[in-house]
Amino acid sequence: MDTDGIMEGLIKENNSKIVMVVMDGLGDIRSPEFDNKTPLEYAKTPNMDALARESVCGRHIPVMPGITPGSGPGHLGIFGYDPKKVVIGRGVLEAVGLGLELKHGDVAARANFATLDDSGRITDRRAGRIPTEKNEELCGILGEIKEIDGVEIIVRPGKGHRFVVILRGENLNPAVNDTDPQHEGHVPLKAEPQKEEAAFTASVINKFVERAERLLHNHHPANGILLRGISSRPKIPGFKEKYKLEAAAIASYPMYRGIADLLGMTLLPAPDSIEGLFKTYLEFHNKYDFFFIHVKGTDQAGEDGEFLTKVNVIEKVDRALPILLEKKPNVLAITGDHSSPCPMRSHSWHPVPVLVNSQFCGSDDAVRFTENQCNIGGLGFFESRHLMPLIMANALRLDKYGA
Amino acid sequence: MDTDGIMEGLIKENNSKIVMVVMDGLGDIRSPEFDNKTPLEYAKTPNMDALARESVCGRHIPVMPGITPGSGPGHLGIFGYDPKKVVIGRGVLEAVGLGLELKHGDVAARANFATLDDSGRITDRRAGRIPTEKNEELCGILGEIKEIDGVEIIVRPGKGHRFVVILRGENLNPAVNDTDPQHEGHVPLKAEPQKEEAAFTASVINKFVERAERLLHNHHPANGILLRGISSRPKIPGFKEKYKLEAAAIASYPMYRGIADLLGMTLLPAPDSIEGLFKTYLEFHNKYDFFFIHVKGTDQAGEDGEFLTKVNVIEKVDRALPILLEKKPNVLAITGDHSSPCPMRSHSWHPVPVLVNSQFCGSDDAVRFTENQCNIGGLGFFESRHLMPLIMANALRLDKYGA
Repeated sequence: MDTDGIMEGLIKENNSKIVMVVMDGLGDIRSPEFDNKTPLEYAKTPNMDALARESVCGRHIPVMPGITPGSGPGHLGIFGYDPKKVVIGRGVLEAVGLGLELKHGDVAARANFATLDDSGRITDRRAGRIPTEKNEELCGILGEIKEIDGVEIIVRPGKGHRFVVILRGENLNPAVNDTDPQHEGHVPLKAEPQKEEAAFTASVINKFVERAERLLHNHHPANGILLRGISSRPKIPGFKEKYKLEAAAIASYPMYRGIADLLGMTLLPAPDSIEGLFKTYLEFHNKYDFFFIHVKGTDQAGEDGEFLTKVNVIEKVDRALPILLEKKPNVLAITGDHSSPCPMRSHSWHPVPVLVNSQFCGSDDAVRFTENQCNIGGLGFFESRHLMPLIMANALRLDKYGA
Repeated sequence: MDTDGIMEGLIKENNSKIVMVVMDGLGDIRSPEFDNKTPLEYAKTPNMDALARESVCGRHIPVMPGITPGSGPGHLGIFGYDPKKVVIGRGVLEAVGLGLELKHGDVAARANFATLDDSGRITDRRAGRIPTEKNEELCGILGEIKEIDGVEIIVRPGKGHRFVVILRGENLNPAVNDTDPQHEGHVPLKAEPQKEEAAFTASVINKFVERAERLLHNHHPANGILLRGISSRPKIPGFKEKYKLEAAAIASYPMYRGIADLLGMTLLPAPDSIEGLFKTYLEFHNKYDFFFIHVKGTDQAGEDGEFLTKVNVIEKVDRALPILLEKKPNVLAITGDHSSPCPMRSHSWHPVPVLVNSQFCGSDDAVRFTENQCNIGGLGFFESRHLMPLIMANALRLDKYGA
């Protein structure tokens, strides 16, 4: 089931408004210590439940059954891009996750500070997990390398031992291997071009690594660097091209702002509170066709195993929902990008509950918005990448296929 | 998940009888003014409900989630052909929809009468929507063109401004563009071959258009013609080849008789009443393996927004069901080809309820044959093209795959 081409050939434009509320990592499994309920089952959510009763519900599968997605594939899926085919490189994700602007043609790498012994072999791939403050200081030192062979070099610290390197200039190509051999006891790998067009980029990276090692010489345990996920902005159609939608993102975390930016969404102000996110929607309601509203707290709570915190975030979204409904969109979808079950303290493969509300959505027998009520919904179980076609259909933005 | 090849390699023959009752446009959504029920939920259907309790239920998706199919893709799906890959051209569909016989190698086009100004530009693509009687008169005039360069020309009126042109002869090829530019203010396009083998066909079409315009010169507003969907019978295996089934169609509408004919089904007498359709099955029970019984009224009611009419057709099918069960087939499937919700007055993307009954179908917790009971059925949600393999399995006509 490939959506490519068929849906795109049927798109028509109208004035409908679409809102997708994404509670990151929303899906969960039951926790024995909380009445054997999931956070959605445990939470008091009168507004979402009322909405569920007049909506069509279902569960979506981010990549395929059993596959746990990262944030990149998770969001690509709900935005209608097949995460089995479209990959956002890790360097790119890390860069946009730090809020850095990436231009087309830039090459980004995810980097580690590492410890090298006198022979140049790696003794610690994470440089003893140096604190972020040390990282920031070292990135300041690497900032002396401003340019190599006409290519601008941008170095920005992340958390702990992680940082990002961006190359900006002409004739760059990301087809270069990782310099991180993934094992201690080895010397870092040379950057090698995987095709002829990447030879220049590989040489710039190798010169950068040499100069960096010289600058870091006296900064043991952070006296080496390792690069991974060397990549450029993916060449994928944005929302305007793919769906003929003027799209906007209301998301406060850099990673999700970055993904939205890669898909051509306008980044709107995103206050910390959930009420604030919904009020931004009200404010910009007339200016865009599609609004992606991202709520981060659910995922964080899931990854921390904090059941009641996750319940609390869900209840906050529920209490704030009437704000959003003051200007009820023609299509409202509430879902997550993946599951992050509290008992697992991590992302997981579990199908994600979803609710789609519109004038013509049809309703089913789900009486609450929970994982297991969604099991009996009228959408069934489907790959996440079909959510956008369903939303487009509900917005009456798709013509009939065939006569 | 492509069925091509795998299922076909497993087929074995036996004496089982299979009946597929297709209530066109059966699927629906709830209507607030009718107790918030769908027509299937609202209708009294004791016979189908009893059957549902000993059947396996589910919902099928004609093309993919969110995609609304026309009648062609809808029927291709339930007959096991992938509507994303197999396309019946619009010219062919229009021709078979008028009950015209199409031979292999014929080229058919859907045509409009149109209004041209003195400079040859289109001022009305539909010739002021002339009445059908006028259309019939004009097609009679075009009937003077019986042959061009050895190719037989057949012109038949449709409804309003629409008619069909069929070219019959040697060396024809349908790879020719539409002459309809789709916009007024332009002159009609010349027919151009999209490949070398279609050059002769394009020249015949251009000669036909020239002669037609001369004949229509004094028939303003219908003084021009526009051709679209130039196509030939698709080269797809029929039921005998694909399933080793002797198949028969009991369908009264030309469109569905035409599709059945394209798939190699024998066209049986199809009286207007539903009892009559089922009695035809009884009469021919011994002569065929597979019976496609088509009920049109449900779709018409859905497209007209006539909820109670749709309920009435469903109840008629239910009341007549015991006739069919007098010779209970080994496999009985009851479904639609797509949904046509009354509140939408059109085809839609909503998954279609389906019930499959056989000795080994298994049963589930669905206690009625309705959209939302089918949500919890043992078949789940699946692409329509998988229905035929499921039916073949229930008929014990498929061998095990692999050792």
